[in-house]
Amino acid sequence: MNKKSYRLAVVGSTGVVGRTILKVLEEKKLPISEYVLFASKKSANKKISFMNKEYTVKELKEDSFNSGFDFAIFSAGSNTSKQYSPIASSKGCIVIDNSSAFRMNPEVPLIVPEVNKYKIFSHKGIIANPNCSTIQAVVALNPLQEHYGITRIIYSTYQAVSGAGKQGLEDLQNGINGILPKKFPYPIFNNCLPHIDIFLDNGYTKEEEKMINETKKILNNNNLKITATTVRVPVENCHSEAICVELEHDFKLQEIKSLLSNSPGIIIQDDIKNNIYPIPTEVTGHNEVFIGRIRRDNSVENGLNLWVVADNIRKGAATNAVQILEILIKNKM
Amino acid sequence: MNKKSYRLAVVGSTGVVGRTILKVLEEKKLPISEYVLFASKKSANKKISFMNKEYTVKELKEDSFNSGFDFAIFSAGSNTSKQYSPIASSKGCIVIDNSSAFRMNPEVPLIVPEVNKYKIFSHKGIIANPNCSTIQAVVALNPLQEHYGITRIIYSTYQAVSGAGKQGLEDLQNGINGILPKKFPYPIFNNCLPHIDIFLDNGYTKEEEKMINETKKILNNNNLKITATTVRVPVENCHSEAICVELEHDFKLQEIKSLLSNSPGIIIQDDIKNNIYPIPTEVTGHNEVFIGRIRRDNSVENGLNLWVVADNIRKGAATNAVQILEILIKNKM
Repeated sequence: MNKKSYRLAVVGSTGVVGRTILKVLEEKKLPISEYVLFASKKSANKKISFMNKEYTVKELKEDSFNSGFDFAIFSAGSNTSKQYSPIASSKGCIVIDNSSAFRMNPEVPLIVPEVNKYKIFSHKGIIANPNCSTIQAVVALNPLQEHYGITRIIYSTYQAVSGAGKQGLEDLQNGINGILPKKFPYPIFNNCLPHIDIFLDNGYTKEEEKMINETKKILNNNNLKITATTVRVPVENCHSEAICVELEHDFKLQEIKSLLSNSPGIIIQDDIKNNIYPIPTEVTGHNEVFIGRIRRDNSVENGLNLWVVADNIRKGAATNAVQILEILIKNKM
Repeated sequence: MNKKSYRLAVVGSTGVVGRTILKVLEEKKLPISEYVLFASKKSANKKISFMNKEYTVKELKEDSFNSGFDFAIFSAGSNTSKQYSPIASSKGCIVIDNSSAFRMNPEVPLIVPEVNKYKIFSHKGIIANPNCSTIQAVVALNPLQEHYGITRIIYSTYQAVSGAGKQGLEDLQNGINGILPKKFPYPIFNNCLPHIDIFLDNGYTKEEEKMINETKKILNNNNLKITATTVRVPVENCHSEAICVELEHDFKLQEIKSLLSNSPGIIIQDDIKNNIYPIPTEVTGHNEVFIGRIRRDNSVENGLNLWVVADNIRKGAATNAVQILEILIKNKM
């Protein structure tokens, strides 16, 4: 295949992530000759304004990929991905899957371009996009692993409701008016819920387990010791993370700051004398990972504390998926 | 002094903590014959309904303690405490000080009754009430230290705006309507600010340093290794804390749960199969420290993760101060 332009399917195009995928595609101006927007039966026939044109959303069906797509970005949940990704890929369409369905499959590369884009081309038809809270963490951690080695990571997250889709956003908005939540088990307005995704038998949530397992896979390091507490907070958009990381080798703080600021996809906002540190309301709408509060953790040898904020819908989902697409296209042309 | 009833001064009686001190005093029904409510000039002459009576708030002055008080609870900030506590104490009034003015003074006991009430009577006129975020943490950690030993603590906090007083509460409420904040440097509505109290030269905030230093003092263990990231979240009331604690000795999770549930001032809410864990909206108004999400931290030997929520105005300030008062009174009678 050595073409100048491609056909792309966007599956789940009406959801919170799907809409942002379309925005990022508009911004990136990739050599794509035809876009087809898919969604479930419920959302089919919706009109979406995209690339200065009105698109009618098509219902996703078994035969949707018969017409010959080069690429598909799936963002419609695990069940849809499990059912339709293999069909798409069997027709020669390369799938970038934003669900958790294939992430831990050893045959499926789990890609954050700033970290492990070299693994993209080992794909067998499906490439997985990691969990939102993991993506922003590994963008920050990869340069540290490469230069100092990492032994242990402690994640405490402050996650936005947009990660729970439209219903999550509605629950927060409705909560202001005292309306009970539909998506979350308790009101999220005015609250913190240490509960994202389902609970597992070991006492962790699936979100916490995703962060632990996906970090190891993306950083290609099964020896990493990791723990996580993931918490939903009443913030519309952008996940924040307090990360304590233990390095193998000693460091100077200034070295860390210049290493991170010269690493891809990272913006340092760390000038505490002027109250400069990343915050969700300012990071929203950006594609980069923002890092601040960079300081020594004196409670352990070679300990470092970071405050990492990113737009969970952009870098945590849509942007990362489109970056993968961009690399695939560049390599084909 | 061996009386049946006492005179109590409440300094800072019109503030968020002061008002709650009055509520807790109403609930406790201590043998106090006379209450005098003080505040700054600005709030003097306000009327407060208390103990089924209307009180007129008096202006705090140099001679306010001349009339002979047994006890005073100060909750009017560091500067007021520094200026007036020594005067009160020089007149024989025992001061329970809720500010940070004297907490780290080696001559001043820093008391959380569930942890170190035996130190109360070493006071020299002033007893310090710890920082809100520290109090709830040490109530949870003390039983673990006593039974297993603690080597290291990692705090990540989710702190309510009530900790910043009336202006903090107003900033959150006004933020819903898009009004810019007065107390916080950035909007707190829809945001997370990794910035509580001022920044120090070492990159930590004063709040983080308070948690580190006060924990060591209250747990009477200078060998503890501690780090902290303290974050303001858009929650009206109740601080939440993700605590990773490393113990000296191995444990069984069930032992930890029964130890904590049998320890003073703690309520365990940890039934994840039924989505039971502590959350701010449910903990508000309670005097106890609520613990859930109790699970092993497999990233380190003898590691344990806890989710700890408490009403920062009650147990984190007012309740703790009144508990100290109660112990002083019981010992005198």
